[in-house]
Amino acid sequence: MASFAKTPEPPYYAVLFTSQRTDVDDGYGAVADRMVELASQQPGFLGVESVRDAAGLGITLSYWASLEAIAAWRAHAEHRVAQAAGRRKWYSHFELRVAKVERASSGPAS
Amino acid sequence: MASFAKTPEPPYYAVLFTSQRTDVDDGYGAVADRMVELASQQPGFLGVESVRDAAGLGITLSYWASLEAIAAWRAHAEHRVAQAAGRRKWYSHFELRVAKVERASSGPAS
Repeated sequence: MASFAKTPEPPYYAVLFTSQRTDVDDGYGAVADRMVELASQQPGFLGVESVRDAAGLGITLSYWASLEAIAAWRAHAEHRVAQAAGRRKWYSHFELRVAKVERASSGPAS
Repeated sequence: MASFAKTPEPPYYAVLFTSQRTDVDDGYGAVADRMVELASQQPGFLGVESVRDAAGLGITLSYWASLEAIAAWRAHAEHRVAQAAGRRKWYSHFELRVAKVERASSGPAS
């Protein structure tokens, strides 16, 4: 996965997912990779940026063309199975926020 | 800093800052810590979540009560000095997005 998402001009939507991993592995890496692959095939997917540190704290930002695209991805059958496993064993806590991106810029050019 | 921000009910605003560090240290850690401390003292600041991995890719999410609060923080004199140093030596690339949080939930309770 590329480090930075090449998103279009705003407006578009972002899902902000901040999570703390448990120490349970149990196939997490393969499922996480599969979810990125699957998300990237969904209608309205615009990109993803994801970081997790050595202490298991992670932030994943996924970008979407519309709230409808986010709703469809949330309801995707294989994604729902992964969501349930995440709640049950892979995450001790997460915060999930849906936001409308209104402005964007990049650097380091000043 | 706590791992998760205790944000109020939406709507509120988020600044999404995804960045790749260079290998230049030159006081980065102290300035980064100071910016979190200073941001947290600004009017309208609601919280921050931040992760950086061993390869230097990081995502920082800061939460704000209004676009005006974000504009004031962006224009803060000490913050502007840090921004310039970031562009000049600390970041090889960054993407900065401003978004309106419309919905939020948390887990793992299902």
